[in-house]
Amino acid sequence: MIPASVFDLVKNDIHLVEARMSVQANQDFPDLQAALTHLIKSGGKRIRPALTLLTGRILESNPEQVITLAAAIEMLHTATLVHDDLIDGALLRRGNPTLNSRWSPAATVLTGDYLFARAAGLAAQANSLTAMRLFAETLAVIVNGEITQLFTKDDIQESSNRSSYYRRINAKTASLFRTSMMVAALVNSTNEEITNAVGRYGYGVGMAFQIVDDVLDFTGNQIAVGKPLGSDLRQGIITLPVIYYLESHPDNPDLQSLFEKTSRQENIERLIESIRNSKAIEQSLEEARTFADHASTEIRGLPECRERQALEDLAHFIVDRNM
Amino acid sequence: MIPASVFDLVKNDIHLVEARMSVQANQDFPDLQAALTHLIKSGGKRIRPALTLLTGRILESNPEQVITLAAAIEMLHTATLVHDDLIDGALLRRGNPTLNSRWSPAATVLTGDYLFARAAGLAAQANSLTAMRLFAETLAVIVNGEITQLFTKDDIQESSNRSSYYRRINAKTASLFRTSMMVAALVNSTNEEITNAVGRYGYGVGMAFQIVDDVLDFTGNQIAVGKPLGSDLRQGIITLPVIYYLESHPDNPDLQSLFEKTSRQENIERLIESIRNSKAIEQSLEEARTFADHASTEIRGLPECRERQALEDLAHFIVDRNM
Repeated sequence: MIPASVFDLVKNDIHLVEARMSVQANQDFPDLQAALTHLIKSGGKRIRPALTLLTGRILESNPEQVITLAAAIEMLHTATLVHDDLIDGALLRRGNPTLNSRWSPAATVLTGDYLFARAAGLAAQANSLTAMRLFAETLAVIVNGEITQLFTKDDIQESSNRSSYYRRINAKTASLFRTSMMVAALVNSTNEEITNAVGRYGYGVGMAFQIVDDVLDFTGNQIAVGKPLGSDLRQGIITLPVIYYLESHPDNPDLQSLFEKTSRQENIERLIESIRNSKAIEQSLEEARTFADHASTEIRGLPECRERQALEDLAHFIVDRNM
Repeated sequence: MIPASVFDLVKNDIHLVEARMSVQANQDFPDLQAALTHLIKSGGKRIRPALTLLTGRILESNPEQVITLAAAIEMLHTATLVHDDLIDGALLRRGNPTLNSRWSPAATVLTGDYLFARAAGLAAQANSLTAMRLFAETLAVIVNGEITQLFTKDDIQESSNRSSYYRRINAKTASLFRTSMMVAALVNSTNEEITNAVGRYGYGVGMAFQIVDDVLDFTGNQIAVGKPLGSDLRQGIITLPVIYYLESHPDNPDLQSLFEKTSRQENIERLIESIRNSKAIEQSLEEARTFADHASTEIRGLPECRERQALEDLAHFIVDRNM
């Protein structure tokens, strides 16, 4: 569980963010309305809006603008998940059936587009050009990352390269965490130094979050994660635990078969089991911890307050969570 | 052909718009770069940016902002076409193979998303919150229109309703034509009356443009149009010529079979031929002409100049074009 202190501080504002998002689901078509409402409501932990809200409080930004931006960011996140699940052919997310498991690709593409449009609309409503520009840039980074993943999927040599992994998880997660922090500073014309510092906090926490996600794909509770263990590797996606395992077991025959593209089901199963029981897991978590620690130090220059403490707690919680 | 006068005035600026768009195609992946460049270059008649540029000239808006917005609008248009073609399963557009005829659905979805991201980025660069808001709203209208089409496709009763047709073509075409005009006024804080008047011109010209497009689907040069005649009807999409034909031939057995969903290939072929040779074609064109005429009168309050004349010419050309 996320420590109560983190969310208690912004619980009411999170409700306002969700209400702002729900309004965007208003629709003439009952099926679509139901699908949008479901997508918006089953939104997971709301970490991104919590980051925006806490930062807005610390920097005393206009609450109305901050809530609108938090809603825009969570809506953008929701939109990318819809297209992601379609692309991956995922049937479950957070244990729930995905939209594409029930709807045609056409309806799924358009629902994602609709959420993008609504996210852009919310971002534009926040009345900050700099925040809007960062928002649009971040969308480009996210989509570019997905394209990279698609285009380099078959190049296991390239994708088992550590810097390629960092680029991918930055695009997938850290970039939007960074933006979630920075927009709360940009609406306030906060000085550049502080804006960049909170951005670095978001980046570090985002990197830690995604590394832990990638670890949980090997070690997590299968029901809670909502997909089979090792599902990244099954899809040919190389994550940090694989990279660490490769470093210490370069001659492992199951890994060899992966690189030579001769893997059978049994090779993959055995490899997942080997990685799961190796020190690659702890090494990866250690790396996540380092990202989180660095992130925490970035916000030391902010005024000391409960919200700053909550951000520090959040950075550490993210590494120690177990789903 | 579009009368030279319309485009000659803004030819150089159109090149700048295209250059601005091309920069957005810069990409690490040669295949994607080639696909984006091709999509951006094979862009048809550039009517939307021409509208923005001509209006910007008349209202003496900042050329840099106007060019950026024109590029954003054409990029948004390109993005919607990529997802449209995927949804329709279209293999040709303007006689060229579509992206989805060669790429996987995943790559096509992401390429469309990438173009959306770049369109939003360009719109944000134009430094106008009101233009940005209108841009985001228009994207929502367009996507909502596509969703309506998808969700009501099987409801032929509803979609042969004239007001349903108007709503659909507003979403599909007129809304972006309207926005193409209005953004050039919004960057300039033009007074509301003029901003709305140029918006109404864009709306009228867009409605006329789409009606003529729908007529050309029945009467056009099949090679130039790039798809088989009557392709809307074949896909179950009811357009104005069908609505007029229905009014004068309510008992036509091929139409009856369409409504009863018992149509065979031969019913559809015969119906297309009947509509093509009926007065429904001229009635539809007459309606397009009325929209174009009204549009022209909307801009009479603008300063008299060559650019205003070009907009008037364009309104009439749009009805009399033959592809």
